[in-house]
Order: sequence, then structure tokens, then C-alpha cells
Amino acid sequence: MPPRLDLIRPHVQTLEPYTPGEQPEDANLIKLNTNENPYGPSPQVLRAVKDAVDDRLRLYPHPTAEPLRKKIAALHDCSPDNVIVGNGSDELLALATRAFVEPASPRGNRERQTIQYFTPSYSLYPVLAAIHGARNKEVPLTRSFGIPPAARLAQRGWLPKAALNFVTTPNAPSGRRYRTSELRKLCQTVQGVTVLDEAYAEFAPENALSLVQEFDHVIVSRTFSKAWSLCFQRVGYFVGPESLIQALHRLRDSYNVNGLGQIAAGATLDDLPWYRENIRKVVEQRERLAKELEQLGFRVVPSAANFLLAAPPARSGDAQAWHEEFRRAGILVRHFTGAAVKNYLRITIGTPEQNLRVSEIARRLLAARTQGRKH
Amino acid sequence: MPPRLDLIRPHVQTLEPYTPGEQPEDANLIKLNTNENPYGPSPQVLRAVKDAVDDRLRLYPHPTAEPLRKKIAALHDCSPDNVIVGNGSDELLALATRAFVEPASPRGNRERQTIQYFTPSYSLYPVLAAIHGARNKEVPLTRSFGIPPAARLAQRGWLPKAALNFVTTPNAPSGRRYRTSELRKLCQTVQGVTVLDEAYAEFAPENALSLVQEFDHVIVSRTFSKAWSLCFQRVGYFVGPESLIQALHRLRDSYNVNGLGQIAAGATLDDLPWYRENIRKVVEQRERLAKELEQLGFRVVPSAANFLLAAPPARSGDAQAWHEEFRRAGILVRHFTGAAVKNYLRITIGTPEQNLRVSEIARRLLAARTQGRKH
Repeated sequence: MPPRLDLIRPHVQTLEPYTPGEQPEDANLIKLNTNENPYGPSPQVLRAVKDAVDDRLRLYPHPTAEPLRKKIAALHDCSPDNVIVGNGSDELLALATRAFVEPASPRGNRERQTIQYFTPSYSLYPVLAAIHGARNKEVPLTRSFGIPPAARLAQRGWLPKAALNFVTTPNAPSGRRYRTSELRKLCQTVQGVTVLDEAYAEFAPENALSLVQEFDHVIVSRTFSKAWSLCFQRVGYFVGPESLIQALHRLRDSYNVNGLGQIAAGATLDDLPWYRENIRKVVEQRERLAKELEQLGFRVVPSAANFLLAAPPARSGDAQAWHEEFRRAGILVRHFTGAAVKNYLRITIGTPEQNLRVSEIARRLLAARTQGRKH
Repeated sequence: MPPRLDLIRPHVQTLEPYTPGEQPEDANLIKLNTNENPYGPSPQVLRAVKDAVDDRLRLYPHPTAEPLRKKIAALHDCSPDNVIVGNGSDELLALATRAFVEPASPRGNRERQTIQYFTPSYSLYPVLAAIHGARNKEVPLTRSFGIPPAARLAQRGWLPKAALNFVTTPNAPSGRRYRTSELRKLCQTVQGVTVLDEAYAEFAPENALSLVQEFDHVIVSRTFSKAWSLCFQRVGYFVGPESLIQALHRLRDSYNVNGLGQIAAGATLDDLPWYRENIRKVVEQRERLAKELEQLGFRVVPSAANFLLAAPPARSGDAQAWHEEFRRAGILVRHFTGAAVKNYLRITIGTPEQNLRVSEIARRLLAARTQGRKH
């Protein structure tokens, strides 16, 4: 049948969807492209999930994920009313656009129709703005991926009254962290809802959760996909002021979080020491791989996450070519085409063996390229 | 902190969320209120899910659920490009509002801003319209929950050009079925996208999937929550014309369906004979319970789903009181307050023992009430 584009809203017809990192068919490929944790869930979590695979699958899960929200609230010393659980934090980021931002319209206040974020940061934000038909305001980070000082923000077009601000901290794809003091100053420059997207916070030396207590317009986003090794199960959450969290609850699907995901996440919070040890190993490996790549001449952004953004040495070929050669050598890393990051590779921290393989291959490719140039 | 309602979009502040059926804490209560299947997933499905609870939970699931989409396509003899899988069919119904309907605006075409459905039907539809800020057009079914004949539809205000039509078939909460020939005529009266919401189709003698082949504006919605006993895992799907399905893909979260849900649903489609037998039992029990309730003086709507809509006998007390007395007797059924259904109870078909208990208690309550009236 010929396509019926006339039935589809005009802005949806032309949408460019978010491009998730490749999920390769080839199981031999070392997968360092989507910042998954190299260590799986704890034995206790696997047992809790297996034990729940029974007749209960016929029943609806808890509609508000209340038992899990209570555990999250206890962890962060807040009330369950300050917590909403999502089908991954992506669902909650999307809900925030629909709760707080008006779609673009020639009438009305433009800033109420605007989602603001820094570039580069999580490449989902412009997609969420486009899906919602909202305006987006991109403000460039400094060359070293820093938040511009408050005085410089205005020069870069930063809008104090944007309806919604997304701030990835630690930043992705750079890995760079921002101090809470710096984020506090940023929150003071804006009046709209501000989501501090802390997907990688557990790998960083500090986090910004305390700002939720200080401000009535600040939400922190967390996920069970990174430090807690549960990508497969789709669980993320927001912690924020009750009125904003309740607005999100009103918009979500009634059973938005699958039951085994709720159980897996709850069991995770009962077994944190096991995960702390894995986080320690990832952080240690991150520092080690960063040093090795630097010794090979890569420019590596200091990272507080579970990945490195690293630019190959000058005159060693462009990052896209490196990405392809890594792949041919059996390692999948991520390459983004945005102007600020196109010279970099983003490499997820793997197991010690995988990371060793990354530096070995980098050394080998570099030798081949240097030799190639000599001839 | 005082609530910051000013940060929330005006229409979101006043939303009435969908009220899901109660998920009671009391495990002794016989739960016949949310149309869950009384029989759990097959042993083969449970094994497949258990076997997948391993290190892979650290990895993202398949972003487009491709292996599952292929199986669904094979089942329905279509292409995987005609299929989108959702986090329950509720997610897909919500995506349809965002893909096909403009939010209400004083300018523009009103019908492009309208979601149309019959009443009573799935009580989520008005909530989806309200969430999206769209107009909704409710058209009453006949007194026997039938679709008004085409000639009468216009009298009842049926809009031929509403952007999106939702049709629950078999209808919920009545259970009444519509013949494909009747649905075909209905589809001919409308130009907008028409979702035939077949959540209960597997319990009915026919379904309307063939209409997806006949029309370029018709989508069929299915769920793994009812006949396939997987509420807990949140998996539903749409089958429809490729251009409409692709529009929905562009709007969904990149990893919208959890991995264990994809595996459970895939394993289900490999074990259909097991489920066919359960469906047969539910249908047999439905007919038996309907007859028993009718013998007690209930008015029972003929059902093609896994539940009955039954009005208690005249002068035996109102349905709300019956609902409460059933609960005190250990059985949770559903009571809706809408004008067309407020005199009815909706009773999910349970196991033979549970259904027997329903008719026993109904008999007992009726005797007590009749006696009560004599004194």
C-alpha cells in the first residue's frame, strides 16, 4: 500500500530518531560502545529474579513500583513521594518534556516552549525536543567540556527561563565531572525545571543529590543500567520535589515498570557492597586505561564515568577510521559525528582483559599507521 | 517546600490519571478485578525466562525487539515492518495519540485534534486524550453495547474525519463482540487512523486482523497480558500499515521493551497449544458462570472476552453494594461508576474453583438480601 503520510502529524513525518549504539549480532566482538557495566548483576540479584519467575507473571506489576520507591527513598533519605520509577530513565526524560514544556507555537512565551541543554551532552535531548514539537536551545560547553562560568552563559545565549534544562553530570560523552558547587551556581541561573541527569554518578567522586533538597525546581535522574548492571530490565528513577514528581506520575502509563525489573532493582539495593566493589574496579581500570592511552599519544578527557573520551594522536588517521579499525580488530567502540566530538572515540571501560586488549590494539594500529606513513 | 505548580503545564496540573484496578495486598483475596488470566505462563516459557536470568541483564535489550517482531509477523503472516512492540499495549495507544493527533488549539482543523471512541469502552482513552491535550469525542454505544448502525452514527455525532479512532473489540467492559463485517463497515465510515484494540481477541470466535490488509488506515492492537498470561512483563504490539507503524517507531523510547519480556513473549509464541487449552477452559468457564448468574437473576452481557459484565437482580441492592459485599466475602471484582455501566459488576473469569465461589457467594448474598427484605 502507498504510505499514508497525511495521517501522520507533520513534525513526526520528518523526525530523526535517536540512534542507539549498535547491538552487534557477533558475540565475539568486545562490546565497549554503549557504556554497559562489564560485570553482571550480583548472584543475590540473579537469584531474586529467578525466584520470581513463576505464576505471578500472569499478574500486573505494582502500578507505582511502591516497594522499590520505598527502598530508593530510604537510600536517598527522602520520601517515596519524591520518587518516580520509569521504564529506564529515558522514559522519565521524555515524560519531563511532556509535563513541563509547551510545544512550539507562534503564540505564547517562547521560553515556556524551550528545552535547553549543553552540547555535547546526551544526544537524546534534541530528539526529545523534536518528538514533543518543542523548541530546543543548545549552548556549547567550553572546549574542555566545562560548563561556562555564569557570566559567560548569557553570551552563549543561555536562557534563564527555559521551561526545562537537561544537564548530564558527569557529562556524556566526555566523561567530565562537574562539582556540586558549580552545579549549584548553574541551578541559580535558571528558573525552569532542571534535570541533573546523573546516569553515571556512581562512578564519580561526588553527586548532586543534595541540590534536590536546596531547590524547588531541581530533579536528579538516576538509572539502574550503568553501575547497577540492569540495562536489560529498563529501570531508572527521578528524585525531586513532590509537586513535580506527581505531575510526572499523572502522565505515565499505569504499569510502566515491568515486574521483574522492579524486583531486580529492589534486590540490587539490598546488595550494594557487591556493586561498590565492581565500581571500584571500573574506576581503577578507567584510570589505568586513560594513562596507557595517553602514553600512546591519545588526548584523554579526565573521566568520572565508566567510559573514556579519547582523541587518537595527531596524524594517526581520523577517529572514524580508528573506529572501523578497532572493529576489524574485534572491539566495538562508539564514534559520534558532532563537531565537538568527531575527533574522539568513546570507549566503555570493560574487564581488565578487555581494557588491555584496547591498549594493545591501539598500540598495534598506531605502529602500523606510523610505519605506513614512513613508506 | 510549597508546590511549584507554575512549572507544570496547565493541563497537566488538573489531569485525572487513569485508575488501574486495585492490586490488593491481601493474597487471600480472589482477584477477579483486572482480567488477568487465571493460568500462569507455560512451563516452557518460565524455563526460557529463568534461563535468561544471567550476566546478559547488564546488556541493553534488542532496541526494536526484532526477534520477537519476526515471530509476531510469522504468526500473522505479515512483515516485521508491520509490527511494533510496546511496553504493554498501553504504551502503543499513547504513542498513537502523539503520532496522529494534534493537541487542541483554537486554530487549525478541530477533527485533526480529536480522538474518538465509543462509550463505554476502555477507560484509558479519555485519559490519553487529556494527557495529550487533545479533544475527545465520545459516542455512546447502543444500550446493548452494540456499535450503532452507520446510518445512526452521524446522529450520535460520530466524526468521519477524527484524527484517531479507538475501538475496543471485543468491547471492554461489556465483553460484547463485534463481527468483522460490522467493523469493516465502521472502518469505511472514518478517514483517520483507526486502532482496533483487540486485547481480548484470543477469547473470541473471530478477530479483525484481516482488516489491516484491507485498509491503509487501520491498526490492530494486541497484548501479551491477557490470553498469554504476561501482565507482569509488559509486552503488547500493533500490527498495521508500514508507514503508520514506522511513525510510531520514531516516537518510542529506544529500548522500550525490557529484555526478559521480549524473551517471555517469544517463548510464548513457540508454545501456543498450551495456551489454546487454557483459553478453551476460560471460554467454557465463562459460559458456565454466565448461565449460573443468569439463573440467579443477574442480567449478563454475552461475552467474547475473559470476563463478564453482569447486573445484579432488580431490588437486590446496587452494584456498588454488591462489589463491597463480594469483597467482604473474599472476592475482588470491578465496579465502574460510568452511567452506562454503574449497575453492573465486571467479573474476571477465574479457575473453576474461583468461579464456583463467585456463584456460591452470589447465591448466598442474594438469599440474605431477599430474606432481609421480607422482615
